[in-house]
Amino acid sequence: MRQLIQPEEDSARRVGKQQGMEHIDAYWRAANYLSVGQIYLLDNPLLTEPLRPEHIKPRLLGHWGTTPGLNFCFAHLNRVIRERDQDMIYICGPGHGGPGAVAHAWLEGSYSERYPDVSQDAEGMRRLFRQFSFPGGIPSHAAPETPGSIHEGGELGYALAHAYGAAFDNPELVVACIVGDGEAETGPLAASWHSNKFLDRRRDGVVLPILHLNGYKIANPTVLARIPTDELIKLVEGYGYRPHLVGPDHAEMAGTLDAAFEQIAAYKAGDADRLPMIILRTPKGWTGPREVDGKPVEGTWRSHQVPLAKVRENPTHLGMLEEWMRSYRPEELFGSEGRPVREIRETVPRGTRRMSANPHANGGELLEPLRLPDFRRTAVEVKSPASQSSEPTRVLGGWLRDVIAANPATFRLLGPDETASNRLSDVFEVTDRAWNAELLPTDENLGAGGRVMEVLSEHLCQGWLEGYLLTGRHGLFNCYEAFIHIIDAMFNQHAKWLESSQKIPWRRPVASLTYLLSSHVWRQDHNGFSHQDPGFLDVVINKKASVVRVYLPPDANTLLSVADHCLRSRDYVNVIVAGKQPVLDLFTMEEAIAHNTRGLGILPWASTDDGTEPDVVLACAGDVPTLETLAAAALLREHLPELKVRVINVVDLMRLQPATEHPHGMSDAEFDTLFTVDKPVIFDFHGYPSLIHQLTYRRHGHGNIHVRGYKEEGTTTTPFDMAMLNDIDRYHLVMDVIDRVPGLGSRQAHLRQRMSDERLRARQYTRDHGEDPAEIRTWTWQAAFSS
Amino acid sequence: MRQLIQPEEDSARRVGKQQGMEHIDAYWRAANYLSVGQIYLLDNPLLTEPLRPEHIKPRLLGHWGTTPGLNFCFAHLNRVIRERDQDMIYICGPGHGGPGAVAHAWLEGSYSERYPDVSQDAEGMRRLFRQFSFPGGIPSHAAPETPGSIHEGGELGYALAHAYGAAFDNPELVVACIVGDGEAETGPLAASWHSNKFLDRRRDGVVLPILHLNGYKIANPTVLARIPTDELIKLVEGYGYRPHLVGPDHAEMAGTLDAAFEQIAAYKAGDADRLPMIILRTPKGWTGPREVDGKPVEGTWRSHQVPLAKVRENPTHLGMLEEWMRSYRPEELFGSEGRPVREIRETVPRGTRRMSANPHANGGELLEPLRLPDFRRTAVEVKSPASQSSEPTRVLGGWLRDVIAANPATFRLLGPDETASNRLSDVFEVTDRAWNAELLPTDENLGAGGRVMEVLSEHLCQGWLEGYLLTGRHGLFNCYEAFIHIIDAMFNQHAKWLESSQKIPWRRPVASLTYLLSSHVWRQDHNGFSHQDPGFLDVVINKKASVVRVYLPPDANTLLSVADHCLRSRDYVNVIVAGKQPVLDLFTMEEAIAHNTRGLGILPWASTDDGTEPDVVLACAGDVPTLETLAAAALLREHLPELKVRVINVVDLMRLQPATEHPHGMSDAEFDTLFTVDKPVIFDFHGYPSLIHQLTYRRHGHGNIHVRGYKEEGTTTTPFDMAMLNDIDRYHLVMDVIDRVPGLGSRQAHLRQRMSDERLRARQYTRDHGEDPAEIRTWTWQAAFSS
Repeated sequence: MRQLIQPEEDSARRVGKQQGMEHIDAYWRAANYLSVGQIYLLDNPLLTEPLRPEHIKPRLLGHWGTTPGLNFCFAHLNRVIRERDQDMIYICGPGHGGPGAVAHAWLEGSYSERYPDVSQDAEGMRRLFRQFSFPGGIPSHAAPETPGSIHEGGELGYALAHAYGAAFDNPELVVACIVGDGEAETGPLAASWHSNKFLDRRRDGVVLPILHLNGYKIANPTVLARIPTDELIKLVEGYGYRPHLVGPDHAEMAGTLDAAFEQIAAYKAGDADRLPMIILRTPKGWTGPREVDGKPVEGTWRSHQVPLAKVRENPTHLGMLEEWMRSYRPEELFGSEGRPVREIRETVPRGTRRMSANPHANGGELLEPLRLPDFRRTAVEVKSPASQSSEPTRVLGGWLRDVIAANPATFRLLGPDETASNRLSDVFEVTDRAWNAELLPTDENLGAGGRVMEVLSEHLCQGWLEGYLLTGRHGLFNCYEAFIHIIDAMFNQHAKWLESSQKIPWRRPVASLTYLLSSHVWRQDHNGFSHQDPGFLDVVINKKASVVRVYLPPDANTLLSVADHCLRSRDYVNVIVAGKQPVLDLFTMEEAIAHNTRGLGILPWASTDDGTEPDVVLACAGDVPTLETLAAAALLREHLPELKVRVINVVDLMRLQPATEHPHGMSDAEFDTLFTVDKPVIFDFHGYPSLIHQLTYRRHGHGNIHVRGYKEEGTTTTPFDMAMLNDIDRYHLVMDVIDRVPGLGSRQAHLRQRMSDERLRARQYTRDHGEDPAEIRTWTWQAAFSS
Repeated sequence: MRQLIQPEEDSARRVGKQQGMEHIDAYWRAANYLSVGQIYLLDNPLLTEPLRPEHIKPRLLGHWGTTPGLNFCFAHLNRVIRERDQDMIYICGPGHGGPGAVAHAWLEGSYSERYPDVSQDAEGMRRLFRQFSFPGGIPSHAAPETPGSIHEGGELGYALAHAYGAAFDNPELVVACIVGDGEAETGPLAASWHSNKFLDRRRDGVVLPILHLNGYKIANPTVLARIPTDELIKLVEGYGYRPHLVGPDHAEMAGTLDAAFEQIAAYKAGDADRLPMIILRTPKGWTGPREVDGKPVEGTWRSHQVPLAKVRENPTHLGMLEEWMRSYRPEELFGSEGRPVREIRETVPRGTRRMSANPHANGGELLEPLRLPDFRRTAVEVKSPASQSSEPTRVLGGWLRDVIAANPATFRLLGPDETASNRLSDVFEVTDRAWNAELLPTDENLGAGGRVMEVLSEHLCQGWLEGYLLTGRHGLFNCYEAFIHIIDAMFNQHAKWLESSQKIPWRRPVASLTYLLSSHVWRQDHNGFSHQDPGFLDVVINKKASVVRVYLPPDANTLLSVADHCLRSRDYVNVIVAGKQPVLDLFTMEEAIAHNTRGLGILPWASTDDGTEPDVVLACAGDVPTLETLAAAALLREHLPELKVRVINVVDLMRLQPATEHPHGMSDAEFDTLFTVDKPVIFDFHGYPSLIHQLTYRRHGHGNIHVRGYKEEGTTTTPFDMAMLNDIDRYHLVMDVIDRVPGLGSRQAHLRQRMSDERLRARQYTRDHGEDPAEIRTWTWQAAFSS
């Protein structure tokens, strides 16, 4: 390993001298030229005339600083691809390098294939420049619009997790992953280095991390650029990699990459235990203006965005820009018609070996549907509704076991160490947890190649799964409901990626990202307040209707059917909330399929309206609210037998929205028929009540919808006490009915008082005995009428 | 450094043999005994009679696995405190160790001081056991209820960041921080190790991380327990620490702690550069049952929660529990009256040196109000409303500079490398960015002791600030609006901490956590879709009204006044959304104060209702919506001069809620007076429209409120195009008025068409020129009427 060249000593000026590197250098200069052009130019792309202010964009929006280093990596990786016929994709953590990513796709020809208007000639180059970060054009970061990218460069931190996700089950693939030294400070990235403990030498591909130390973030030095080199080396050795330090020099980079790929080959052959990674130190804004207005720019944070900020107004800046662009000698790089010269074209791999055209980076091209076993075979037998209980996720686990068995290389189940806790353990009958670190004799269900991925990092689970899905595979993320908020921001970014991708014809649909949220708010009574939060649904529903789906199956059979539906879907984010604790079985499998197909429906056996207009509607969504609603319906049947009660269960939350707002939305006519326009609706909901109001506020009967849900009351207590703390319990629902149905309040004050007393009695029992009263614990619909 | 003892070789049986360690061992046994008792027992706390099923809790809820190791650390740290009279607090990452944390407080006497009912005797011990994880009792994790804790043990990952936050500006303090090896896999924790690059030797205290490798998470081994020891050592050396490996042995632990504190002293004296950390390897469930039902438990994941699960039902388990508890020899530990024996009491530090009673862990006890400079002195002079512009955050920066200068040791400004980008750079006139790594000559505003903390990790910013606030200091977190979602989950946990703390009399109020969200959704036109998300407000508003406050100051002076208010507040989470781009100055400073005090108000100069009932209300919240609303009001004044328009600006979003829902909420009478009960209200909102509906759905006029806001439309474009993409622009507002005011639709079809044409024209101009039309860019209220 060699010492780094200090940034002061190196420069573009040393570049290109090395024997055999001229063509790579030409490619690199071309990519740099195209990057600068995108940031600055409206016109005169080939500098066929002196630059004038009107050639310059009025708003200069883009990021130069990271780009030349990224271009340098790309140029050199291309040589490796050609020489080794290597299947490789490129994940660029510093998404600010958008102009570079676009430049490569254009140089490789794939940009013009995807966007024929942006042809590989002078007019195409003009359009390429103009569209960048321009209204009606393309984003300034790597984005779905960028050929060859599966990684949005907006929010930072997820590059390495995406890279590993792409490498899993792609044994021939190398994923080159540039980690910016800014991004390296984020939590998700810091955790991602350990992904190598989950990589299987035989079944998975390889990630080659390239830590790009250009030294600065927006306005600050980076931590990793300013710790002693020996500490940095120890750090990455501690992460389990063999580091290679390389400075800004073509020959060095080429030699280092050759060594790294030899090590990768040795690893794949079983001759080495540790994979390489590269630490590339370059100046930030390398080859850009050294100094502007008397201040150093190249090699400092000042080159982060636009090194010359006043080009239109300031003739000196304009002159410097022209000098800068001409320093790449465009006349050597592009023919008079603007096409890259042959020497450059020849550095580029062919066809799908081009990283900008590799199908792994447009995973829908490779996607094959899962072989899904018939979930009906896993169904729970239900003889009469709500008379027996099952653990829904445990039942689901049986089906997921069969999914895994039938799809041994294209499906993974992810979770932060909660697969067993969420009662999906049946999957371990056919697979292990992926594990590539030390094994002990006492270990169970642990081994290389396991389909279950457990790491105590929701970020890693999410990032791995995103990478896995975007490269054309399938998966499911199971998580405690409260802690899924940890990846709110990652969900946002992925949903935005999907929203954008849906509008890009060449982006083929990928498998949906499906969450199974279990150990949910109502059954975290034992873990307490910190584990109680159903608010992820609120985050999800803010995203576009074209992308998000939310399901709250109330029992095991509906869960099975929903899960099957979700794993067949494309380009969505599906959220399934389902408990792991026993809940009443409500539906036979055929009924469950019919109920899910409608997305919601009346439970006729629990209703007393006999198909006529009811006096009150009891609606519910979520397993615990459904149980409480049924118990309330039973109480009403017992105490107010003349009251016409309609019980509605909602599985598909999006059905509540107007059809104009969501593709699953009901027409007003349907909604009115079900919920009435003027009768009180007591809606017992799994999450925060405001969400139901949000979904229904345009409905005619909205003023009559009274929602119970989680109102941020919780502690370590019993399940029924949790329900009571938040007023979603059966007794309170009956009280709500009495309060809301005209006339009942005065006539049924006695019943209301009795319900209130029942609550106090239940609470006192709980305080005295540490568990819920037996009649609550063992309540079933049948029991309600057999006592 | 010595090799680890393998878990197989060690055990509790070796313990206590070392000379001089007997009392520490006794303390440890007592803490373990009390921990087991809390998990299992309802009664018979001192085992004065044989255990019977009725002594056992019906639901066994707690976590044993991590607890004995944590107790071991606490016992040994106490010796150091006594011998060195060390000011120390204890942050316990494995929050599952709740029973241990409670046990220490009881043994130290502080528990009974805080909760006199739980006295330090047999009856107190019975109550201590019973209340744990029991309805009406205390949580199973370390929580606000736990004396000596500033760290909720629910969601994992934040221990080390909290510890550093506590250490900043506490030069005499050592923060012992146990990092669980499960937690160590999380992103936030992985990033936190580098916090040492931000620690000032002179002005800050020291964090002593103790990485507790007990080998397992819930059901899996941990990564750090299964990598080669040499890699683990390199890893922590790479993080910049001097690691000490220690096994489960009293003498070793004592010797290691002595060495570590010598190194800490050397560091403080300037004689050492690197601080120590400890890697403690113990069996999980150490000293618990070795084997249960034929399966190994001690030293495996099976000891994570309750090693003996069927104690009530299974006499063998009951017998094993009694044997286990008696193995600690309680008769040696507690007198017949249940009080800890003298030997144990003497191992405990005195008074506020007890970690369970250290005031740093109840920061409100140490809190002193900030010395806040008069923000009126920083005010922008406003001669007439909306005729000039300021950059609100830049103006705020001037005041924050003065805040920092006046409070050099109790206020910090945090942000992920965005302080300059958010235009708060004036602060650098009086301080630096904290930096303890290499410095280069080109660096600016960087140095030890800086009050500004910038790291590219929202998690670290949030975690540091939480630790800093909870130990009695003040701060402000500035962040890009979209990326604050990264800490949604941390916000949730902190809000829950505050919600719980408010109910605990001895928890003194701490300074509020205040967010300044800038570079917001409407001015991320240049960064594109990935940077556009105003949904943090939705996450915030789900938390309890007693804790959350949201402010959207529309100009510089209102921002100043809001910021002053927030920095004076206690026990809240304040969210301020304010732009960095120039916005119109609307209020003189006195007007701004009055407007903020009301929280919302009519802008009389923009209204044409002359105090009478208006035909339409234009409401707005947020700087860009306010600008568009004013422009719409000007258009209406020009084109429909007879229309009575009332313009209302909302600063304090919580004012919209009913008074019954939030302490800031308006009465219905006030609301009706302002917004009318029957006139159309066109509400232009900064965030997702549903939030306004959520806040106002109980208002009489709710059916007439029509909200415009962000509807997930965005890309890289111009600011006005962003507004148009989401229909919050002036032209669309006028169209909305025409559509909503009865009768206007038919009469003003021409004006509506003209507005629609203006939109098309503006969009086309943007596409052609790459910037907004000049009349949009330079629009002011004055200009609207001077042309």
